[in-house]
Amino acid sequence: MSARAYRATVDVVLKRSILDPQGRAVEATLGRLGHGNVSGVRIGKRIEMVLEGERHDVERQLREIADKVLSNPVMEDVEVTLEEA
Amino acid sequence: MSARAYRATVDVVLKRSILDPQGRAVEATLGRLGHGNVSGVRIGKRIEMVLEGERHDVERQLREIADKVLSNPVMEDVEVTLEEA
Repeated sequence: MSARAYRATVDVVLKRSILDPQGRAVEATLGRLGHGNVSGVRIGKRIEMVLEGERHDVERQLREIADKVLSNPVMEDVEVTLEEA
Repeated sequence: MSARAYRATVDVVLKRSILDPQGRAVEATLGRLGHGNVSGVRIGKRIEMVLEGERHDVERQLREIADKVLSNPVMEDVEVTLEEA
């Protein structure tokens, strides 16, 4: 098994129980633009990166980066995907 | 056909040809933390929302919101997904 490159995405969104003022502002703006049927706007981050290594190691490393560096587990939920590059 | 609610996500990322200083900063930090095998970090936005209406109308509306309100087509690429809530 040789090392490979993997393309990862990390999606970080505020937990449902946390107010999202930026989302509320966008929702109000959309309403003024005639999009009154839009609700529940939430604004999060999407981080993309490439990791080199063995799949098993890379999965563990990505989980650690997502949980400890890129998100705040008190306020945010995080989802990761990993695919061979 | 009655109106339904649809859950949408809009992912906005900087075009490949545009420098991403925030991504470079995160990549440098990850390197200092021992994640030297990580490259190509890009930081974008992920927007979630709920739209009510007929699927056909909602698809067109979501495309318009994504292209004209939530992203800048000169600098950013945008991807949307839509599923019944």
